[in-house]
Amino acid sequence: MELPKKMRAAVLYDWNDFRLTEVDVPEPQDSEVLIKVESCSICAGDVKIITRGMMGQPPMGEFIIGHEYAGTVVKLGPNVEEFAVGDRVTVEVHKGCGRCKNCLDGKVTVCLNYGNTAKGHRANGFTTNGGFADYAVNHVNTVSKIPDNISFDEATIITTAGTSLFGIERMGGFIAGENVAVLGPGSIGLMAVQCAKALGAANVMLTGTRDERLELGKELGADNTINVKKEDPVKKIQELTGGIGADLVLVTSGSEAAFNQALKAVRKGGDITLLAHFDDPVKVEIGLAIQKMNNIYTIRGEGRQCTHRSLELMAEGKIQAKPLLTHSFPLEQLREGFDVFMERRDGAIKVVIHP
Amino acid sequence: MELPKKMRAAVLYDWNDFRLTEVDVPEPQDSEVLIKVESCSICAGDVKIITRGMMGQPPMGEFIIGHEYAGTVVKLGPNVEEFAVGDRVTVEVHKGCGRCKNCLDGKVTVCLNYGNTAKGHRANGFTTNGGFADYAVNHVNTVSKIPDNISFDEATIITTAGTSLFGIERMGGFIAGENVAVLGPGSIGLMAVQCAKALGAANVMLTGTRDERLELGKELGADNTINVKKEDPVKKIQELTGGIGADLVLVTSGSEAAFNQALKAVRKGGDITLLAHFDDPVKVEIGLAIQKMNNIYTIRGEGRQCTHRSLELMAEGKIQAKPLLTHSFPLEQLREGFDVFMERRDGAIKVVIHP
Amino acid sequence: MELPKKMRAAVLYDWNDFRLTEVDVPEPQDSEVLIKVESCSICAGDVKIITRGMMGQPPMGEFIIGHEYAGTVVKLGPNVEEFAVGDRVTVEVHKGCGRCKNCLDGKVTVCLNYGNTAKGHRANGFTTNGGFADYAVNHVNTVSKIPDNISFDEATIITTAGTSLFGIERMGGFIAGENVAVLGPGSIGLMAVQCAKALGAANVMLTGTRDERLELGKELGADNTINVKKEDPVKKIQELTGGIGADLVLVTSGSEAAFNQALKAVRKGGDITLLAHFDDPVKVEIGLAIQKMNNIYTIRGEGRQCTHRSLELMAEGKIQAKPLLTHSFPLEQLREGFDVFMERRDGAIKVVIHP
Amino acid sequence: MELPKKMRAAVLYDWNDFRLTEVDVPEPQDSEVLIKVESCSICAGDVKIITRGMMGQPPMGEFIIGHEYAGTVVKLGPNVEEFAVGDRVTVEVHKGCGRCKNCLDGKVTVCLNYGNTAKGHRANGFTTNGGFADYAVNHVNTVSKIPDNISFDEATIITTAGTSLFGIERMGGFIAGENVAVLGPGSIGLMAVQCAKALGAANVMLTGTRDERLELGKELGADNTINVKKEDPVKKIQELTGGIGADLVLVTSGSEAAFNQALKAVRKGGDITLLAHFDDPVKVEIGLAIQKMNNIYTIRGEGRQCTHRSLELMAEGKIQAKPLLTHSFPLEQLREGFDVFMERRDGAIKVVIHP
Repeated sequence: MELPKKMRAAVLYDWNDFRLTEVDVPEPQDSEVLIKVESCSICAGDVKIITRGMMGQPPMGEFIIGHEYAGTVVKLGPNVEEFAVGDRVTVEVHKGCGRCKNCLDGKVTVCLNYGNTAKGHRANGFTTNGGFADYAVNHVNTVSKIPDNISFDEATIITTAGTSLFGIERMGGFIAGENVAVLGPGSIGLMAVQCAKALGAANVMLTGTRDERLELGKELGADNTINVKKEDPVKKIQELTGGIGADLVLVTSGSEAAFNQALKAVRKGGDITLLAHFDDPVKVEIGLAIQKMNNIYTIRGEGRQCTHRSLELMAEGKIQAKPLLTHSFPLEQLREGFDVFMERRDGAIKVVIHP
Repeated sequence: MELPKKMRAAVLYDWNDFRLTEVDVPEPQDSEVLIKVESCSICAGDVKIITRGMMGQPPMGEFIIGHEYAGTVVKLGPNVEEFAVGDRVTVEVHKGCGRCKNCLDGKVTVCLNYGNTAKGHRANGFTTNGGFADYAVNHVNTVSKIPDNISFDEATIITTAGTSLFGIERMGGFIAGENVAVLGPGSIGLMAVQCAKALGAANVMLTGTRDERLELGKELGADNTINVKKEDPVKKIQELTGGIGADLVLVTSGSEAAFNQALKAVRKGGDITLLAHFDDPVKVEIGLAIQKMNNIYTIRGEGRQCTHRSLELMAEGKIQAKPLLTHSFPLEQLREGFDVFMERRDGAIKVVIHP
Repeated sequence: MELPKKMRAAVLYDWNDFRLTEVDVPEPQDSEVLIKVESCSICAGDVKIITRGMMGQPPMGEFIIGHEYAGTVVKLGPNVEEFAVGDRVTVEVHKGCGRCKNCLDGKVTVCLNYGNTAKGHRANGFTTNGGFADYAVNHVNTVSKIPDNISFDEATIITTAGTSLFGIERMGGFIAGENVAVLGPGSIGLMAVQCAKALGAANVMLTGTRDERLELGKELGADNTINVKKEDPVKKIQELTGGIGADLVLVTSGSEAAFNQALKAVRKGGDITLLAHFDDPVKVEIGLAIQKMNNIYTIRGEGRQCTHRSLELMAEGKIQAKPLLTHSFPLEQLREGFDVFMERRDGAIKVVIHP
Repeated sequence: MELPKKMRAAVLYDWNDFRLTEVDVPEPQDSEVLIKVESCSICAGDVKIITRGMMGQPPMGEFIIGHEYAGTVVKLGPNVEEFAVGDRVTVEVHKGCGRCKNCLDGKVTVCLNYGNTAKGHRANGFTTNGGFADYAVNHVNTVSKIPDNISFDEATIITTAGTSLFGIERMGGFIAGENVAVLGPGSIGLMAVQCAKALGAANVMLTGTRDERLELGKELGADNTINVKKEDPVKKIQELTGGIGADLVLVTSGSEAAFNQALKAVRKGGDITLLAHFDDPVKVEIGLAIQKMNNIYTIRGEGRQCTHRSLELMAEGKIQAKPLLTHSFPLEQLREGFDVFMERRDGAIKVVIHP
């Protein structure tokens, strides 16, 4: 197949100003593949990137945004055996440098050479070019084959799913029979509900402020939902757990209130994982965690094979992407896609872009 | 409710000689409950107990056998709030002494005061009286409430399920998306298949020698089955895993062959858990485990809340007991029950006794 | 040996009002020993107990305070083989109920039946009678034999040492070659410095506000000390670690500032343990922990055999108690002992009382 | 500094036939450094390599042997900031591919692309050229700076030390206060003794057949030594541990007898790590491990930063290399060095070669 030399790509020119631009189709280097992008989702991280920027972001006028994408392998760089032209694949963000203490320890998402492309780090859509484009290149260690029963659109969500799953893994991962509270029904929270159930959690309790989201959470497996505008979530979780508290609490909303609810609702000896970004300092009753001996785990991105694991769970029908994929637009309408996503217009959860 | 003073119980008088005998109904002591036994299953351990004996076994003529039982709480000892008369409950075997290094570390199944009743250890049906009887007493920390949608018969199997689950927990417990080989389709193996799938395993491969057992394994969730009389299980597992080997291998048959197959079929960096008893020394290619850096985990009994976790998985329909409960007899026919079980007559897997 | 019927004990009558009172010598019950108290240290917890009270505290007029004590076994209750009359012993605080989820999981310090003596929980000096007295009774699972080369006074400090060690254990415990920051040179902090070095930490950095404490920290093994009044601890820790940050941070001061310093000074992918009490809510830049994927571990008391482990480290000369034992008083002067401790008079760190 | 174009190197031409040959000085590629080799030790692995060969070994006539070396950085490849010309450094063996499941999980020593240089794997002295030569190239992620107080000769032993330490890490790593048996006083065993003491082990018991090795073990920190020709090691370890058995057993001799002793001598609930190569199948009483719930951990090489950690322990004087470095020869006498090592002539333990 003859590949074009030029392609369309959403390049960031200034804050909140990206434009479809004609650029060169990238060439896959050693251990890389070139992917024809079929679907690329908009993530909250993208909003931060276009409005305020993140660490290691490339200069304005050069940077192609987008990091949750799936597509077809169309060309192999040298030394690639893992994939063949024609493979349906999806990607994860973080390729570590492979030489720092964290990468050698399996913690690639906190690579100590983050942003240092000379040393081999890449984070497509963050520090290197991403997927709101016709084509993108990825190192093989960020690429997964898509099982046949999963569409490209669904496959874009494995970073979300992998992040939720990684949050559970950081707690130890063995949650069969445990009571799990998920605080916040965003896309990470809704995936966390599904992952928790898929791993055998007993009673999954989801909190939030919007009834339609909670309703969706219930459809996706939450055993109980709590609208925090109508009920005290701490009291309700205590009730639902016989006064003992939740064994595990996943904080999927980056709010001071949610963190404090977690500290109050978790069982003595239970654990908390923070899966949300907290932009501002929070005032928290941390003394509770010491009194109750609760560990507070955190995650950055999707580690420990969690994207691969998510794909398997999705292939087996144990987690679903479709109910979260509320909108889609062609690449030409990326601006509208962002607007729908940012305003949560028409109940938007995930918005998928098709180049 | 007026309780009788006397009851029937299967007392062991000599090797392979147990008899229904009239004995006193036991009195629940501090933190104990008296259970009216409704169902009690026969386990391979029982066979060992009646034919050869196990460590700490009480004297002939006194010992009431049976350890996998479920029933109704009919009387509370002092200081019991966890249960009420009328509660439907099931039991696990091991009550630790609560004072040795292992118990304090949460490893109650290997209590260093095993068999020492003065120091508080109990293992009903092993070192203290068990459940082939009208009534039995249990410390509250070995008792679980049965969810409404689980029958007494089904509830007798939670020790089996808890053992399988504990085997997975010892490996780390986070097996979502992993390829898991289960070597041996006995009741532990069939439960292991179900537990592995319930926790999100990707490809569960079950090996054995009897097609009907493998067939049942498939019905219970095994993605692939391998009759070792017809196919080389190591070669087949390699094939099914793209030449990499199984991420995890659960050895549920106590045979030299199975252990060696595990060593050959496991992935580099993967792990093995031994869930079977090995009565005799085995000749094994242990060098493979060092070359491939495979840990070999073991379990004794059901630890880390695994019986409670199993009950939750069963209540959610993620593991099933019924297909394993092939036969049942009244207590008067316990001898026949044992014979059916030991000869695997009519495809017997688990045989349930009803007092 | 004939034991007296009556003894002296410091009974709490009102806030900040304890008095030496004549009470009955307690009788050791099943699995308990009676200890002739030789030394009992004052801990910050005692100050809280006498000034504000803690959860599960017995009524005024009845409660004997003191929890860090050592002495000689003078009488055995039934079923005690672990100890003999004449044994030199020291104690730890927490005896779990042995029946709740946490106790069965080895987390006795967060027993779900905390304070419930009927169910078997005891926390001498917190919820049951303690050691500012001539005699005290303890369940065998809270008692350790003292190696010959350790004095009673030194042995009172194993709760402090065990707490510091437990903080390291919660992080994983394998800290050989790691850079460790200890924020706060109180008795827990000074023990943490020693434990970290005893376990092979490379660069132990101690922060504080008082030069004499930092100096002592250096004598006890700290490789670097930082007076936060004179230097920016975050900047200094970054410098001392080549810009990477501390691999592990132990927060041994319950202040908002220390917690924030920990969040800033810890390495990407490194971990934090909170070993101090935080009485008030704190405003913290928790977002840093998520960006850097730092887990925040907590401890309550001394778990996982850490008192036993501390005694071994002390017996081997790897951690020292003497430099922390700055003052001692007879039991009659307990009030003065508390005053010296609370006012940190004459550089007081630990004050030992001799009944 | 002008570097020569040619150098001397020990090239393997046939089994047991290596010869000093003139070859090109290698050129450091991207992220590599060129090291002027000062010292290179002989390891049991080298003996296997020259006599029987190992997986992935390069063709005869091309392969430069030697993997335990230290020296001075003399040239940097592109993109190297971690080191400067003139740095004193030592190396570890395994550079993973950075793209397989095991490498991404931090298990580089069991890289699934072992031996595949195109995909980035290197194991100098095993699958790529090693250090019995004037110069060698290494990827930066296998290089460590040597602290000033450690000589090149001593630094060659960090692979040995790192392997022993990794064995402890695989068990969990928190061994403060534990009783540890080390079965086999080879160089790995003698380092294991030191590492165990350096990490706070209480009673380290070393077994072996030669009194002079056991004596050395005692000098290096073993609390007890047992000559298995004179005493029953299992009985003795039971005695030394109050009948409970060793908490941890490190098997540093690849013999059937040692493995069986480990199974018998380990405590209920304790753990075993196999640190030796087992060339032949062994007949073992594995049933004991299940009865006592002992995990059997294994290691391959030196993982989880254990070489870096070892260097720190050595710099702090907590482990010593010198007593193990019994002989040294110039590169011209490599043959004699091998002979001395293989025959254990004059009590040889480690033999260092100086190019």
